[in-house]
Amino acid sequence: MPPTLHDLQISNLGRCRVPSPGLQRDWGHAHSTWVEESNRILVDDRTEALTACQQAAQQPLTVEMAGPRRSIYFDPKTTTFGIVTCGGICPGLNDVIRQLVMHGHFGYGVARILGLPYGFESLNPAFGHVPLELTPERVAKIHHTGGSHLGTSRGKQDPAVMVDQLVALGINVLFVVGGDGSQHGALKIYEEVTRRKLQIAVVGIPKTIDNDLLYMDRSFGYNTACAEAFRTISVAHAEARGSRNGLGLVKLMGRDSGFIACAASLASSEVNFVLIPEVPFELEGDTGLLALLERRLRERGHAVVVVAEGAGQELIPNTPSDRDASGNRRFGDIGGFLKGQIQAHFARQNLELNIKYIDPSYELRGGVATPEDRVFCLQLARHAVHAAMAGKTGMVVALWHQRFVHLPAAVVASGRRRVDTQGDLWRCVLETTGQPAQMGDTPATP
Amino acid sequence: MPPTLHDLQISNLGRCRVPSPGLQRDWGHAHSTWVEESNRILVDDRTEALTACQQAAQQPLTVEMAGPRRSIYFDPKTTTFGIVTCGGICPGLNDVIRQLVMHGHFGYGVARILGLPYGFESLNPAFGHVPLELTPERVAKIHHTGGSHLGTSRGKQDPAVMVDQLVALGINVLFVVGGDGSQHGALKIYEEVTRRKLQIAVVGIPKTIDNDLLYMDRSFGYNTACAEAFRTISVAHAEARGSRNGLGLVKLMGRDSGFIACAASLASSEVNFVLIPEVPFELEGDTGLLALLERRLRERGHAVVVVAEGAGQELIPNTPSDRDASGNRRFGDIGGFLKGQIQAHFARQNLELNIKYIDPSYELRGGVATPEDRVFCLQLARHAVHAAMAGKTGMVVALWHQRFVHLPAAVVASGRRRVDTQGDLWRCVLETTGQPAQMGDTPATP
Amino acid sequence: MPPTLHDLQISNLGRCRVPSPGLQRDWGHAHSTWVEESNRILVDDRTEALTACQQAAQQPLTVEMAGPRRSIYFDPKTTTFGIVTCGGICPGLNDVIRQLVMHGHFGYGVARILGLPYGFESLNPAFGHVPLELTPERVAKIHHTGGSHLGTSRGKQDPAVMVDQLVALGINVLFVVGGDGSQHGALKIYEEVTRRKLQIAVVGIPKTIDNDLLYMDRSFGYNTACAEAFRTISVAHAEARGSRNGLGLVKLMGRDSGFIACAASLASSEVNFVLIPEVPFELEGDTGLLALLERRLRERGHAVVVVAEGAGQELIPNTPSDRDASGNRRFGDIGGFLKGQIQAHFARQNLELNIKYIDPSYELRGGVATPEDRVFCLQLARHAVHAAMAGKTGMVVALWHQRFVHLPAAVVASGRRRVDTQGDLWRCVLETTGQPAQMGDTPATP
Amino acid sequence: MPPTLHDLQISNLGRCRVPSPGLQRDWGHAHSTWVEESNRILVDDRTEALTACQQAAQQPLTVEMAGPRRSIYFDPKTTTFGIVTCGGICPGLNDVIRQLVMHGHFGYGVARILGLPYGFESLNPAFGHVPLELTPERVAKIHHTGGSHLGTSRGKQDPAVMVDQLVALGINVLFVVGGDGSQHGALKIYEEVTRRKLQIAVVGIPKTIDNDLLYMDRSFGYNTACAEAFRTISVAHAEARGSRNGLGLVKLMGRDSGFIACAASLASSEVNFVLIPEVPFELEGDTGLLALLERRLRERGHAVVVVAEGAGQELIPNTPSDRDASGNRRFGDIGGFLKGQIQAHFARQNLELNIKYIDPSYELRGGVATPEDRVFCLQLARHAVHAAMAGKTGMVVALWHQRFVHLPAAVVASGRRRVDTQGDLWRCVLETTGQPAQMGDTPATP
Repeated sequence: MPPTLHDLQISNLGRCRVPSPGLQRDWGHAHSTWVEESNRILVDDRTEALTACQQAAQQPLTVEMAGPRRSIYFDPKTTTFGIVTCGGICPGLNDVIRQLVMHGHFGYGVARILGLPYGFESLNPAFGHVPLELTPERVAKIHHTGGSHLGTSRGKQDPAVMVDQLVALGINVLFVVGGDGSQHGALKIYEEVTRRKLQIAVVGIPKTIDNDLLYMDRSFGYNTACAEAFRTISVAHAEARGSRNGLGLVKLMGRDSGFIACAASLASSEVNFVLIPEVPFELEGDTGLLALLERRLRERGHAVVVVAEGAGQELIPNTPSDRDASGNRRFGDIGGFLKGQIQAHFARQNLELNIKYIDPSYELRGGVATPEDRVFCLQLARHAVHAAMAGKTGMVVALWHQRFVHLPAAVVASGRRRVDTQGDLWRCVLETTGQPAQMGDTPATP
Repeated sequence: MPPTLHDLQISNLGRCRVPSPGLQRDWGHAHSTWVEESNRILVDDRTEALTACQQAAQQPLTVEMAGPRRSIYFDPKTTTFGIVTCGGICPGLNDVIRQLVMHGHFGYGVARILGLPYGFESLNPAFGHVPLELTPERVAKIHHTGGSHLGTSRGKQDPAVMVDQLVALGINVLFVVGGDGSQHGALKIYEEVTRRKLQIAVVGIPKTIDNDLLYMDRSFGYNTACAEAFRTISVAHAEARGSRNGLGLVKLMGRDSGFIACAASLASSEVNFVLIPEVPFELEGDTGLLALLERRLRERGHAVVVVAEGAGQELIPNTPSDRDASGNRRFGDIGGFLKGQIQAHFARQNLELNIKYIDPSYELRGGVATPEDRVFCLQLARHAVHAAMAGKTGMVVALWHQRFVHLPAAVVASGRRRVDTQGDLWRCVLETTGQPAQMGDTPATP
Repeated sequence: MPPTLHDLQISNLGRCRVPSPGLQRDWGHAHSTWVEESNRILVDDRTEALTACQQAAQQPLTVEMAGPRRSIYFDPKTTTFGIVTCGGICPGLNDVIRQLVMHGHFGYGVARILGLPYGFESLNPAFGHVPLELTPERVAKIHHTGGSHLGTSRGKQDPAVMVDQLVALGINVLFVVGGDGSQHGALKIYEEVTRRKLQIAVVGIPKTIDNDLLYMDRSFGYNTACAEAFRTISVAHAEARGSRNGLGLVKLMGRDSGFIACAASLASSEVNFVLIPEVPFELEGDTGLLALLERRLRERGHAVVVVAEGAGQELIPNTPSDRDASGNRRFGDIGGFLKGQIQAHFARQNLELNIKYIDPSYELRGGVATPEDRVFCLQLARHAVHAAMAGKTGMVVALWHQRFVHLPAAVVASGRRRVDTQGDLWRCVLETTGQPAQMGDTPATP
Repeated sequence: MPPTLHDLQISNLGRCRVPSPGLQRDWGHAHSTWVEESNRILVDDRTEALTACQQAAQQPLTVEMAGPRRSIYFDPKTTTFGIVTCGGICPGLNDVIRQLVMHGHFGYGVARILGLPYGFESLNPAFGHVPLELTPERVAKIHHTGGSHLGTSRGKQDPAVMVDQLVALGINVLFVVGGDGSQHGALKIYEEVTRRKLQIAVVGIPKTIDNDLLYMDRSFGYNTACAEAFRTISVAHAEARGSRNGLGLVKLMGRDSGFIACAASLASSEVNFVLIPEVPFELEGDTGLLALLERRLRERGHAVVVVAEGAGQELIPNTPSDRDASGNRRFGDIGGFLKGQIQAHFARQNLELNIKYIDPSYELRGGVATPEDRVFCLQLARHAVHAAMAGKTGMVVALWHQRFVHLPAAVVASGRRRVDTQGDLWRCVLETTGQPAQMGDTPATP
């Protein structure tokens, strides 16, 4: 059985017996930087949460801190890494790949590192993909371009087939860089490995441009995506200001959560309406979006609207109901739909409207990582290597309250983080845009 | 009658009698920087053109050089400038507005400068737009954002009405920042002014993001647009590399000419097919685009296609035939059309295809100008002020063979520059992409 | 007596009686976004810290959460804000000023907002500075340029004089944007205000490009500075690779702490030696920097060294011992010193050396804020306004473990945060550079 | 004897007999894109120049147009390219290297391409440098980082030794990417090759960040350098605005010419004094820089000064008189000198001064090329390959009046282009800054 959310305990392959010589040698007296297994931090650091635990006579939930262990499980000289990237591309993917290689090679002296092309397909021999031998030299410059050096794919493969292939390739540690679907796949591999009692560690590095993973301060690439989205909103604002009754409408990534829409709108601080999946809204009626937009244009002559791709799905007639190869629900095109509705409304009012619709789509995720994301990717990758070498498995690395931690892979696959509509970020959006907390008669979900 | 292309003579309001004291005072002995009326350069500097003229016993075509004149026509103390921006927004518009104000104010001591909102509409009292009093202080920071500080609009107004309004506002010099349609409007104003024998100069600063104006090295904003387009292509390349049979398809601005598509593709040097309005292409057949794309994907596993919005219009069924308010022909959506055709082709071949279609649209024109464009806008605006103060009218400023010149406004309105399919730029594209000069059986037009 | 570090209690001017109508009106049913006075979070969220408290039968240290209160202390209709920026400029200063104005005006309807020019000097009438009336319109575009719209200055002014001036200007809330010295000045004003029993709130927004303030995840501008420093390091790397035995030497800001040096070096991941104030190093000897550098160049032909300005001060002969107007100790020029020492060493070894020394200095702090910093500045400024309106005083706003909190001003002035040489960041630097934890015989301080 | 400036005739190794099959094959019917030997353009396109020639009964000076020839001299199957980069690094160097390889390989099918490390040293066996075998794959990503993939060096090597080495390496075409000193070196190699009647073409790609080469619209990297310098000036302006009597002083590259200083100052349009090598200035006296600066600070409270490194050398006592390995004269540090003089002056006047001195130095040249420079490098490299394959030698490629041309290498080595103090650029600087044409009693040189 996989580790559960409840105890947040991390599985280990076994007892660590090998000293971490590589690190010790280079660092002289820096012994005390080892992180002990007992180092943990609280999941919820609010006093009210602590009080509740005390009253219920429960131990508060805690997570294990990441970092190099004094002893490791794998002997670097005989260890082979496998690296796989899954799902959509994301800024920083190549930084992660590069640092896994750099740290495996220089930090631990790992014997062999294989890049597995095109996601989990590479673990299914039927596809015939050939692993790439990765060396520091070969990955030295890959972070200067966006995308994934290894290529990615969507979709599931049979865990039994994949574990067979891991064994065939002699892989001791599999790093899975991917979103919740892929971490679910990694979990299946971990379970199969456990069932077969194999000595293979499965370590995940969570990836989602939407920043919607549970128990994580943020996900890599999100910083870059927000910076790019900010650029787009600036353009929409220029377009809106440029003509009478100018309306800039921007659709941004964000399937289940509106983090990018919120952050980029705050960075711009020129947005008048932010529409996110977490907050339902209505178009019609006195307090609906169309009436509010009309009022704004009559008063100020221009407006900017930002909509996350997953927002307002319930408004779109005949929304598709199928799913893509990753199992993600397909969405109706809220941007195009809104554009049409707004145009129709202004036409009905016989009011001039100059609407400019921008959908930057792939531009948010296909670029090179910002310096901030570079540092973050480097840290994630290095902690993933530390964890793997210590024999941790069935887990992912993450940043929680500014510290790197280990989380059971099951946690990542157990749900998605959403913008807290009673929290700081959304309040800040309401304050900055001046938009009402509720548009139409539907109350915001608490 | 307006000045014609043939002689390239610039109209003057009358003899310049006022010395240029402002400049003289500050610059000490720098007298010799005045440009004389007789300073002209050749339009065609190829020896073969010169020889042809000699054989035909004709004078070669020459243009007047821009720059401050020793004497000016308008007395700055009693002069009012009007500034109007027309058509779509363009990077650098605010730089141009700002420098017209700075140079009018500090360079000549012009008494009053009016910003005319929302294009030519501002010269039609029916719209009720109120001119903005522009001062150095008020325009000091406008160049830090994209768009137009004054707003723009499309469409024509009655020249008689507009000239009435110029007179009513006491405007002596009208600066028209706009594309060929707007320069045509400026020409109509100039003709009406001339007919009424008014002392109003009409000076144009040509604007087109497509870089498709005749007798101009380049237009402002084009440099910025290419830089932005380059970013988008980089993303498309990352997407293409990121999945098996990945295809990045990018639609770029370029209605009648493919300059942006060519330059951005060269900057990237990762593009495999560049499709521009100047070069017809076919989809079907052994040497058609679809077959070539299929071959590329089979051989290399990924591809990038860049298409200018005006390319391949003849391929799209039911292309719209109407025009927008500026009189621009509406185009069929070649990007969406190509995406569909390519998907259908690969489906027919039963070949996997991961197509990512990116249409950056407004992002090419809504941003802040690059430093290069800033310098260019500054120079254009200053030369426009020099020309206007010297009583030049019915003309535009431009850069030709690296020198600023005066061109009759009629020239700008007389046609559009297109990529020379026998020239250096297109050859460079063919060399870099490796695409054939002809796709399908239709020969490239000479 | 000022609030102390020990209890982290925030002073209040008195009981809040005024409802927050502005917010309530616009937000409909969004009541539950109020933050209660009882909402607090732990300062130390490690289980070991919690256990230690339990064993000592002590309550763990907690801090108050920031956010809008249900009732406020000041009546917006009669409230005047004063804003002052002190010390060196920092990316985001104008964002902070702008958001204080926006949120004061639109969020609460504050009657009047004064910008106080050139730091605390503006509160000393002897300087004759005239406050600027700030409105949303006047600050609308200030965030598009770096620096401070208000100007800054260094140095102290007499608290009694400053409080007299606050009274004379009718200021009810003073926002002090500045570093530890300025927050110390703010504390003196707060104490004087308290002594006189005045109803003036003093609220700080901590500013330090070095990111070295206690109890704060980060300071605004730091993200931007690191991005800029990363650019510089990339250049140094290009120079180092460009010639035989090329050595790129970069001096970065960081007086008492090496956060910028560490983060920018990690972002680059091409740095071989990072020298920070927290870690003493030696030049001579077998394990000294010079010998290590020589080895690196002999083996790899190029190297990059990053040094924080406060590093290795003990090595420089005749280091200045005075202080600047802000009371900051003057530093010896470690960059120039190192350059000289390295050149001398290689000359002694008769070894070619191509050293390129880059000191980006002001370039780290004079630019426009990154989108990330923009959001952060917006949030800080808004929380400062919320706190001030609730009558909080003698305090600063900060981000701690991903939540905005209130801290007593005394905390900021009580010390500086330094890179933990046993912690995650520094270990990551050691791993990435491969440099030894100790250079020379001096052990790294624990 | 080398080709002279007078006739601008290009040397050829011999008659071209090999058809250009590679190009023909791929391009289908695009025959007419060949450039004929007779295609030439005027050097001076001003009518007055033309008239002067006619009066003197002289033929006007013309230059040969670049481009692919119908027949080529070298048989690609047996041709080896050598590429060498010399002098300081420059943005775009890697683009040039990459495109030489790409076009040699894909455009002509050249058999072998050698990268020669560390400049001309690589042609002296005494240094023991080993040539790198360059393939499209190996150079695919080099343009994503600044600097030179091959490394550079300064200084001369014996032409006889170098030609021996060319022969030993079997090199048929040597591409020299470097400044005037290096093109002089290339000329020496060409002369030695000619003396020995060898079939080796020597083709130069001129490189100078200062943009100071004769008969060239611009040099590659200059656009990038100006963009970077613009950033620095923006920072200086923020610093100047940030404090009372704030003075931002920026030193920029520009040894003999002030092109970067002028262009970056115009892009910023916030600079008050631009000091360039072409225009002498005085410090003392009523109209000297110090008095003017004092007046500016008294009136406006802040100022920005930009100085090119080669400006005002005659003012600095004890200026060094030696030269570096490239034969470039060493300069006194005008930035540091000015800073000291300005500080002393304000101290004498007992006037507060907050001076911030920024010397971005290597940051102007160590970065990645702008998209504009990328296109330019691509075009230069491709034309260099076309020229070389056609057997052109002792020449360089350049852009002149917007067309790519061939120039005798002797032209590049014959002098340097300087800012025309009677021309458009400098006048624009005077207009924008408002600085007098003459500072002190020394008249500007005509």
